[in-house]
This record gives sequence, C-alpha cells and structure tokens, in this order.
Amino acid sequence: MVARRAQLADVAVDMAARQRDISVSEFFVKNRHLLGFDTPVKALVTAVKEAVDNALDACEEAGILPEIHVQVIDRYGKYRIVVEDNGPGIVETQIAKIFGKLLYGSKFHKLSQSRGQQGMGISAAGMYAQLTVAKPLHIISRIAGEPLASELLVSIDVAKNRPDIHRKKRMQWDKPHGTRVEMEMEGHYQKGPHSIEAYLQQTAIANPHVTIVYQDPGGAGTRFERSVAALPAQPTEIKPHPYGIELGRLIQMLSDTPKRTLLQFLIHEFSCVGKETALKIIAQAGGRLSERSYPKHIARAQAVALHNAIKHTRVRAPRTDCLVPIGTEQLLEGLRKELKAEFFTATLRPAASYRGNPFQVEAGIAYGHAGDSDIEVGPDGHMHKKAQQSGEPAPGLKNEAVRLLRFANRVPLLYQQASCAITKGVIQTNWRGYGIQQAKGALPTAPMAIIVHVASVWVPYTSESKEAIEPYPEILKEIKLALQQCGRELASSGCTRNMTAAATSKPSCRISASPYRTSFR
Amino acid sequence: MVARRAQLADVAVDMAARQRDISVSEFFVKNRHLLGFDTPVKALVTAVKEAVDNALDACEEAGILPEIHVQVIDRYGKYRIVVEDNGPGIVETQIAKIFGKLLYGSKFHKLSQSRGQQGMGISAAGMYAQLTVAKPLHIISRIAGEPLASELLVSIDVAKNRPDIHRKKRMQWDKPHGTRVEMEMEGHYQKGPHSIEAYLQQTAIANPHVTIVYQDPGGAGTRFERSVAALPAQPTEIKPHPYGIELGRLIQMLSDTPKRTLLQFLIHEFSCVGKETALKIIAQAGGRLSERSYPKHIARAQAVALHNAIKHTRVRAPRTDCLVPIGTEQLLEGLRKELKAEFFTATLRPAASYRGNPFQVEAGIAYGHAGDSDIEVGPDGHMHKKAQQSGEPAPGLKNEAVRLLRFANRVPLLYQQASCAITKGVIQTNWRGYGIQQAKGALPTAPMAIIVHVASVWVPYTSESKEAIEPYPEILKEIKLALQQCGRELASSGCTRNMTAAATSKPSCRISASPYRTSFR
Repeated sequence: MVARRAQLADVAVDMAARQRDISVSEFFVKNRHLLGFDTPVKALVTAVKEAVDNALDACEEAGILPEIHVQVIDRYGKYRIVVEDNGPGIVETQIAKIFGKLLYGSKFHKLSQSRGQQGMGISAAGMYAQLTVAKPLHIISRIAGEPLASELLVSIDVAKNRPDIHRKKRMQWDKPHGTRVEMEMEGHYQKGPHSIEAYLQQTAIANPHVTIVYQDPGGAGTRFERSVAALPAQPTEIKPHPYGIELGRLIQMLSDTPKRTLLQFLIHEFSCVGKETALKIIAQAGGRLSERSYPKHIARAQAVALHNAIKHTRVRAPRTDCLVPIGTEQLLEGLRKELKAEFFTATLRPAASYRGNPFQVEAGIAYGHAGDSDIEVGPDGHMHKKAQQSGEPAPGLKNEAVRLLRFANRVPLLYQQASCAITKGVIQTNWRGYGIQQAKGALPTAPMAIIVHVASVWVPYTSESKEAIEPYPEILKEIKLALQQCGRELASSGCTRNMTAAATSKPSCRISASPYRTSFR
Repeated sequence: MVARRAQLADVAVDMAARQRDISVSEFFVKNRHLLGFDTPVKALVTAVKEAVDNALDACEEAGILPEIHVQVIDRYGKYRIVVEDNGPGIVETQIAKIFGKLLYGSKFHKLSQSRGQQGMGISAAGMYAQLTVAKPLHIISRIAGEPLASELLVSIDVAKNRPDIHRKKRMQWDKPHGTRVEMEMEGHYQKGPHSIEAYLQQTAIANPHVTIVYQDPGGAGTRFERSVAALPAQPTEIKPHPYGIELGRLIQMLSDTPKRTLLQFLIHEFSCVGKETALKIIAQAGGRLSERSYPKHIARAQAVALHNAIKHTRVRAPRTDCLVPIGTEQLLEGLRKELKAEFFTATLRPAASYRGNPFQVEAGIAYGHAGDSDIEVGPDGHMHKKAQQSGEPAPGLKNEAVRLLRFANRVPLLYQQASCAITKGVIQTNWRGYGIQQAKGALPTAPMAIIVHVASVWVPYTSESKEAIEPYPEILKEIKLALQQCGRELASSGCTRNMTAAATSKPSCRISASPYRTSFR
C-alpha cells in the first residue's frame, strides 16, 4: 500500500517534469491545416493571399491606390512567391517582427474593418516556407523620403515564436516607397476555382480600385486593371458597443481605463454612449455607484450591477459609418465585367451587429437565361458562358448548383464553402419561391452566380485560415434577408418563369433597356 | 510632393506605433468559437468535456481505474461545474500553470495517444468562466501520501497569458489522491444529442473501464458503471517516423540533438530506423556526409541531400504498438449495452500513417430491423427503440439518416459533424451496394447506428475545439475501408434484403444464435 502510494506520487512528479510551455509557433507547425497550409495546392494560394491582403491593407490605410505585383516562379518543383506593393513601407525595426512572429500586428487590438486581423497570416506563410524549404523570407521595404530601402532575411525561431534575423542592410531600390516579400516553399500549382488566379480575379471584383499584375509559373502575365480611380472611404475605428461586453471584460476595462470617473469611462470607452445614456446606466445600476465613482475601485459586485444595468438600458444601435461595403454599383460593375449574364441585381442591407460588433451584408445575383447561357469557371479561373450547341438545352442547367462567390472584408473566400455562414444562408433561402430549383438542404440549381459580401470590424472566421465565416445567428439572418431581396427582384423580372419551357426554346425575357437593376434599402 | 512624401512616411511611423504583441489568450477570447465556446449550450458541454478528458488521461497515465464525479449546478441562471477524479493529483507548483495558461502541458511535445494534446482545453474553460462570471477556477489536488491537499484559486491574466493566483493553501481533504476543479460560467443547460449526458454516455461506451457519477442541474443522478475492471494497455510514446519529417524540421532536429554522430542521430531520433536503415540513408545521401558527421555541423545543402535520401530509402512502416484501439469486442459490448439493435458487427483496421503519424481506425454497426425497430436518442440522451404502433411501418425508416457516433482517441465528438473525416467517410461509402438507401452526397438512410473510432498519436482536428477530424486522404481511406468491411458483413447477414417489404411486414432475418459478429483483419 505504501509502495503503491509512493509509486502514484512518483507519477505526479514525473508528469510535472514533462509539463511545459508550448509556443504558439510550435502549435501551428503541428496544426498547419488550421492556417490553410494543409495541401500543397492550398499552401501556394494561402501564401499569396496573405501577402496580397497585407499589401492592400497597407496601401489603403496610407491613402495610396494599390498596385500589386505578384509573381509565382517554378524552382525545380518548389515555388518562389514574390509580392510587391506601392504601400507606405514598414519602419525597419518592425519588419522582423511582422514577418517573423505569429500573433503580432496592428489590426488585432482595434475595431476597424480590415482584411487582416490576427497578426498571423504572413508569418505563417514564412513559417511554412521555412518548414518545407528551410530558407528565410526575403523582405525589402522603403519608406517615402528615405534615401535607401531596408533589406532583411528573416526566419522564425519556432520554439520561442520570435524572429531570427539573418541579414539586415540598407540598399538602393528603384521604388520610391513600398514593400516586397519573397519566399520559397513546397507547393503544387494548379488552375481552377481554387487557384491563385481565381483569388486574384475575385479580389479585382471586390476591389475595383486595385491594379494587380500577375505572372504565373509558366511566365504568362495577366493584368487586372482598376476600373475606379478613387479609393473607397477609409473605415473608421470604433469603440466596442456596450451590449457586446461580457462581465469579465467590463471588469478588465474598468481596471485598465485611464479615465477617473465612471461617467467618463462609460462615455469614452464605449461607442453609442453619450452623457445621457451613461447617466441612465449609472442610475439603473444603483447601489453605491455614482457618476463620480473611480473605475479602478469598483468591486466585483458593483461591476455585476453595472453589467446588468447596461443590459437593461436602451443604447442606440452600433455605429455603421465604420463599415465600408463594396457598394451595389461597384459590385454590379465587377460582376458585369466578369460574367456574361442577362439579369443582374444587387442589394445592400443596413448595418446590424453580433456580440456588439457592427457588420453589414451586401449581395448580388447574376442570372443567365435558361437555355441561353450557363456560367462556368474555365480552366483559366475565369467565369464565362458554357460552350453549347444551338437548339439543345443548356448543359448542366437542371443539375448544376449555382456558382457562389463569398467575400469577407473584400477578401474572396475560396475554401471551406460548406461550413460558411454565406453558404448556409444561400441554402436556407427558399429559392423555389423565386422560380428556381432547389433540393432540400442544397444550393439552388440554376444558371446563376451569387455574390455575398460580409463587412465587419471583426469577422468571426471558423478557423485561423480565414476561409469561412462562423454562422452567428445575426449574421445568417442578414445574409438571408439580402438574398431574399435579390430573389424577389429576380422573380419579378420574369426571367425565371417557365424554366422548363425556356430550356428548350429561346427565352422571352431580356431586360434590354436596363442591363441591371439595383435595389437599395 | 515633398509634403505628400512626409505624410506617407508619417503613416508608416503611425502604423509602427500601433504594432504590438497579441497574447494567445487575447486571441482566443476574441475567437472563443474556435475553442468550442460559441453558444451557451456548447460552452457547458465543452467545459465538462475538457475537465473529464484531462481526468481520464491523468488516471490512465498513473495506472488508476478512473472514477469521475461530475456535477452541474444551476446558480440562478449561471452554472457551476464540478469535476473530481481519483487520479494521481498535480504537483502544487504546476497547478496554476495547467489551469491558468493557454498552451501549457505535457502532452503536446510527445507522440503518444492521449485525449488532450494541446495544453489548452481546461484553461480555455477557465478563461470563459472568467469572461462571463468573473470568478476564478477553484482547484483542489492531492498527491498520494501527502498529508494535505493543495487548494488554489486561479484566473488568467489574459493580456499576458499567465496565471493569477488569488489563493493558495493546504487543506484537509477526504480523498487520498485526486484532483477537483470547480468553475462557474454562463451557459444554457439542455438535453439531447449534443448534451453533457450524451457526451458522458458516449464516453462510457468508448471507455468501458471508466465509472462516471453524474448529477444534473435538476439534482438527478446517473451512474455509468464500468463494465471492464482492467485498464486498457498503456499507449507507448514513439519517436517521429522519418517519412513525416519536413526539411525545416530535420534541420531543427539536427541542431537540437544531443547525439554526436549522424548515425546515432538517425537511430535515436526516429522510430523504425535501425543501424542498417540509417547506414543506407547516409550512403544514399552521399556527398560529404558520413556516419561520423557531427549533426550540428551539417549545412543546409547536406541536410537537403539527407532529406532526399530519407525519401528514397525504404523505411519500415510506423510502429503500431503505440496505439490502443477500443477493441471490437469492447466496442460491441458498449453498443449492445446502449442500443437495442438486432445485428452488430465491428472491425479493426491495421494501423496506417499520415504525415508520419501512426493512426488506426475501428468501426462498428448496429442495425435495427426495418419495420421492427428504429433507433433514436431520447430526451434523456440515451439511445433506444422508437415507440411505434404495431402493424405500421417504422417511423422515419425511409427518410432518417443513420445515427453516427464519432470518436477520436476515445473521446466522443459531438459537434461539427459535417466537416469531420468520419462523416465524409460514411458519405463516400457506397451503402447501396449493401442494400441500404443513400441519396447522393448524403448519409445513408436506415435504422442503423455507425460507430467510428480514430486513434492516433496526433489527431489532426479541424479546430482547437477538437470537434472534428481533418479529412487527410490517408485517414479518409482507412475509415472507408473499415466501413466497407462492416457493410459487407451486414449485407451477407441478409438483414438489409427486401427492405421495402420488411417495412410493412415482420422481418424474417434475426441472428439469434449469434447476437453479433466481429470481423478482424
């Protein structure tokens, strides 16, 4: 018995000896599929995506019309990826951390619509490059007005999640300002709906102010030219909405605030709380709380009362000027440029919120006439009409699911379609009500493309690879409302009437006077 | 122009000022849905699951037959969860870190089959408790032979991802050894297929050596008694298989190893590499490498050659004695205890590997006669026959999907069924070949339950909440092979013949002599 006890105690001590820190980099090396690096095809797309998203964010934040050069080079079975922007450049002391450390960045701690939000994407790409080819990232960056650019070779010390700098020097660079990142990794290059081309093309649709120059591994060049010469409005940064604050976070905020009274705290740390609302909250909380209470001295029980008071006080809905949708006109412009369809409609929902985070949904539909044309993504990654013989019904009309284009904060989402709130929203919309075939629990079947964009100050992705949106009920509801609006427009256009008849004869509906409609709320 | 340049430079400097570290705890507070805390119902289930999984791992590692007490108490709309085990206890200096720090633990750095692997689960539950109710975790732990237990109140400093200890003292405790954790959180208690009861019941199926005593918020008690009085074999720890090592990792291992020759390095840092294989690899690598090469001095180009040499040398398949499946006999025993079906079969596949990680799949089927009985999960979370009127066809026979029970390393997976490799494996199996209805791309439709267990030294989950298995091709293939074996057994039993006729008349097949079959490979 004593021996057994001693043995058990030894086990506990043994276990203790093995317990230790896991660095966030080690964690993601083992779980690289969470970051989008699970297959060689996806690895290349993800790496390009992370670099381009960062470039676009930087340009827009600096008020520069983005011109991005992307190059993918075949290096004897490995691939070298080069992404170069005309952004503001990066301060030299920050370069190593941005590219050589997971969970480091400027976007996580502010509530503002941006493509990146985790501070993880580009360093994850670098980590994957290092894992598979064992070469560091090569970065060149120049700030406007500096005589020279900074050049660094950076890898990640995975066990410590911190950058290893292999070279750092100043060099001549022909660009007046911008950043260039170059990395080499294992991968597999492939065209099609989940390709680098598809990502760039869809990026061009959602970002008509961007020019992208792309060179594929075969050396062929594609230029996605901007169709709009003005930047979209700059998204503003907001404070959290009081309805989205949990008790634990409220207590943390009370202890962290520089404000010296509860009244000032409520007004300055939250959005949508003016003096009047703040006073109502304090009155509702009652007890020993007053507008002069010193935030850092508010005890847990009082914080609980304050938290309840917030729930029971009417606070106006989250501000929406922090969100910058693509805009229905531009959405249609992009669709028309890329799709040969006969009927277009788009709609923008008013902003709503989930967990206190404002978000806004916009959706569009491009519908090709039954029996006239069908939309497909060709081997080049571009959508175009399906080839067909005249007189025959359009191929795939009856049993082809609609083409779905998903966007979050202007970034195309290419993978994990099944788990995405947008897909669920499309499936849960009753398309048969608008004259479109749909099997239970499936995407509708029609010669149609659907575009949905969700813009938010914090997009809840289903994984760190940011490929799908978590179906929070509030988000799902707005997506469905936007789609219903589009569906009604489509049904009232008459295009979907007599689908079966239309499949064998030339259709009668063609909106020639107005090539597209927009509907605003 | 100069003004514009200066302005751009300012933007870069502004950005730099905002760039900073994101702690892993902050990241997961904002992305709590990644950890399984997205809805109030799921939050309770996840918290119980993390605590019970840890308790089971600790007991088994110490060679103790686990007896776990789980209590969920309604506290005026919040819930208090208490989980107590008879494990070996935790060394006092480790308690705070284990419960108050994400990414800390003993299981991440070793390749061994265990329920936990990330060092994140229980501290995530604590973080959620702190966020919603703002009370610390209350932990009591005692090591065998110690006169007193340690009692701690621990919360997480989210900004720094480190534990805050609010109280630490020694106390009398009636248990000779074990650990007790108590936490209070917002949540919603609910019965059904995604409930705490379902999790515990399925845990009992997959772990017949475990006794669980459960008290629900209504005060009702359930005892899941062990049916086997012996522990399963202890999973052994293994070294990585050379085929799963990427170049970057190989270079890291060369630089970290304490071994002083390449030969010793290959033999001791990898599994399945003996002296002969190691010499073959070195010969294949050629160049300046010899068996006496000093690992730390091997340059990148030589490492590349070594990496290629490994790929081109025959190394025996990963060891499989590191895996402990549930076992077909025990799987059937569990199924029979819980399910009233007429035909049972189960199969165990040989071990295979993905990315160098060994894994093993076992699957079982319980089939209720068409028109005789149907299986459903009742409001109590237990599966039983569906009530039916005699003479009528069984309800739901034609349009009800099979019940699917998914397990990874003996842990039931309750959520994210659609994204799981197991679900994909079931859908991609051609059940019509075995006489069972199945729509394209859907689960088969039959009065049937399917159990699949994937055991591995590293289960690739689709998210940190560990609810679904990433469909790596190798894993998907093994799942399908196991299901096909079960399907063939089922078809040859004759149970699924004349399904439509059977739906209206008493069925003729009943395996009375042998209530179940097992098939081994």
